[in-house]
Amino acid sequence: MDYGNELAIGIDIGGTNTKYGIVNHRGVILQKGELKTDIYEKVEPFIDALYEKLAPIVDLNSGEGALKGIGIGAPNANYYNGTIEHAPNLNWKGVIPFARMVSERFGLPCSITNDANAAAVGEMSYGAARGMKNFIMITLGTGVGSGIVANGQLIYGEDGFAGELGHTIVRYGGRKHPSTGLLGSLEAYASATGIVVTAKEMIRDSAEPSLLRDLNDELTSKTIFESALKGDKLAREVFRFTGQVLGEALANFVMFSSPEAIILFGGVIKAGDLLLEPTKQYMEKNLLPVFQNKVKIIFSELEEADAAILGASALVWEMKYEDSRFRSSL
Amino acid sequence: MDYGNELAIGIDIGGTNTKYGIVNHRGVILQKGELKTDIYEKVEPFIDALYEKLAPIVDLNSGEGALKGIGIGAPNANYYNGTIEHAPNLNWKGVIPFARMVSERFGLPCSITNDANAAAVGEMSYGAARGMKNFIMITLGTGVGSGIVANGQLIYGEDGFAGELGHTIVRYGGRKHPSTGLLGSLEAYASATGIVVTAKEMIRDSAEPSLLRDLNDELTSKTIFESALKGDKLAREVFRFTGQVLGEALANFVMFSSPEAIILFGGVIKAGDLLLEPTKQYMEKNLLPVFQNKVKIIFSELEEADAAILGASALVWEMKYEDSRFRSSL
Repeated sequence: MDYGNELAIGIDIGGTNTKYGIVNHRGVILQKGELKTDIYEKVEPFIDALYEKLAPIVDLNSGEGALKGIGIGAPNANYYNGTIEHAPNLNWKGVIPFARMVSERFGLPCSITNDANAAAVGEMSYGAARGMKNFIMITLGTGVGSGIVANGQLIYGEDGFAGELGHTIVRYGGRKHPSTGLLGSLEAYASATGIVVTAKEMIRDSAEPSLLRDLNDELTSKTIFESALKGDKLAREVFRFTGQVLGEALANFVMFSSPEAIILFGGVIKAGDLLLEPTKQYMEKNLLPVFQNKVKIIFSELEEADAAILGASALVWEMKYEDSRFRSSL
Repeated sequence: MDYGNELAIGIDIGGTNTKYGIVNHRGVILQKGELKTDIYEKVEPFIDALYEKLAPIVDLNSGEGALKGIGIGAPNANYYNGTIEHAPNLNWKGVIPFARMVSERFGLPCSITNDANAAAVGEMSYGAARGMKNFIMITLGTGVGSGIVANGQLIYGEDGFAGELGHTIVRYGGRKHPSTGLLGSLEAYASATGIVVTAKEMIRDSAEPSLLRDLNDELTSKTIFESALKGDKLAREVFRFTGQVLGEALANFVMFSSPEAIILFGGVIKAGDLLLEPTKQYMEKNLLPVFQNKVKIIFSELEEADAAILGASALVWEMKYEDSRFRSSL
């Protein structure tokens, strides 16, 4: 089949900004834009503003091919219900029937899922996971998110919230997560935030001279990485330890779903081999022999700035192969 | 559709004994039997012996309905390839094309999977998971096995070996597993073997008077349970701790695949509420709020003696809904 002329709208809703784009089947963003999210106290005027921004683009591009629908990635989005539920970083409280509202405003089918699931779908459609039927996407940013694909399908679970691997416990009785309160969860170590905590602990507990000691308020995963590039031993140890915890967690995930690959995405992967090498090493060390030397750990192939839009848009291509659940929000 | 007359053969291959039965769609075992596994040094004479045992039963029951095929549960069985691979508890070494060999000997389609996956299929067909599309089966016996169902399908993963949750790490740097060497894996705590280790540790580390102190070589998960029933505090603490570790592990699994239920199976569940209550408590405690008070933990509804045969037989019903992979071993 030739899908060449079909187009999809991808929308990535973040706490501060919302980005959108019109995307074709090859994953080319034909046109894109953004608007503020946090200036809208209520959801209705936000959807109106989104429509006003997008309507001219929709008109412009409707000559190129059929617009098939709208895909949305958003925090705390429930794929089954089309809702955004109690999202702590959005102004709109409670349970919002977001997909239905967008669908009615635009007159197009709409599918919604959380950010990390959208990233996984994007990677499967346009990125490093093309052709894969079993993989796990781990997003390493301010937080740690995940999307799990098995048998060629995203795992949504019974309630639509499956794939919260950032909140699995990797260090029993370990570091307390600042917002969930869980002890020793992956996100407390492998997020950009967790990396800074690790650096602070190492500065405190080690006598080693280090560039990190002078950074003070400037201590971020980025400046720690820059220090590591300059050969700073403590900074390199921060990434080695982060990779160790991540690798140990990945071993657990592999023994769950035995994927072909684990795809890492997000700001933290800029650390490159400093992170990847220990991650691989400690994953292998914690696997049963039957799983060893099988699972690739690879970095996302999508540009971070575009990935969220691409991932959201790819939800639209999924619609046509799937059952009516994808349109139940209509 | 009326499947009433269709029959399936279920075969459960264990290290010592092999059990088999002819099963109908309602999960009734019409006839069953067993033979020794470990007296056969080679696999060919074992399959011959199996055929000789089953041929008369097949003849007897062929009047009742169509015999659709053979399902097998076996250690280290690979569903995709139809092979048994490097099973430590079987005499037959290397990679054995078991499903193909059985299929050729019997002239019937044959499907094979590991014991815990077969148990999950059995529970879905005849037991506590009837109608469920998302659940996790945990078998608590000498070891800890698992079968994971998501979107109504067993998760086999890229290589056919998915679902080794007994080997995921729940206590970082914890108890060493006697055969895998992994530190702190679930199986080292929640298996019948692990429960005995816990009891020995508690006897050593506590000054509490306890019936367990006199058991010596008789110390088994069964005698610990009997002591707990008599009100022995230390014995009760053994199960509380086992439930705690299991519950914490289950929380991790829930955040992976968000199942409707977790089904526990195997000898260890005879401990009943002594195990179930702490398991529930610690699972809930380690879940994000979005997952709390949603996931049922229930005991298998299948008789343990029959469950393995039923589970293996249920693989046959799966064949007809699925693609040709199930028959590739023919």
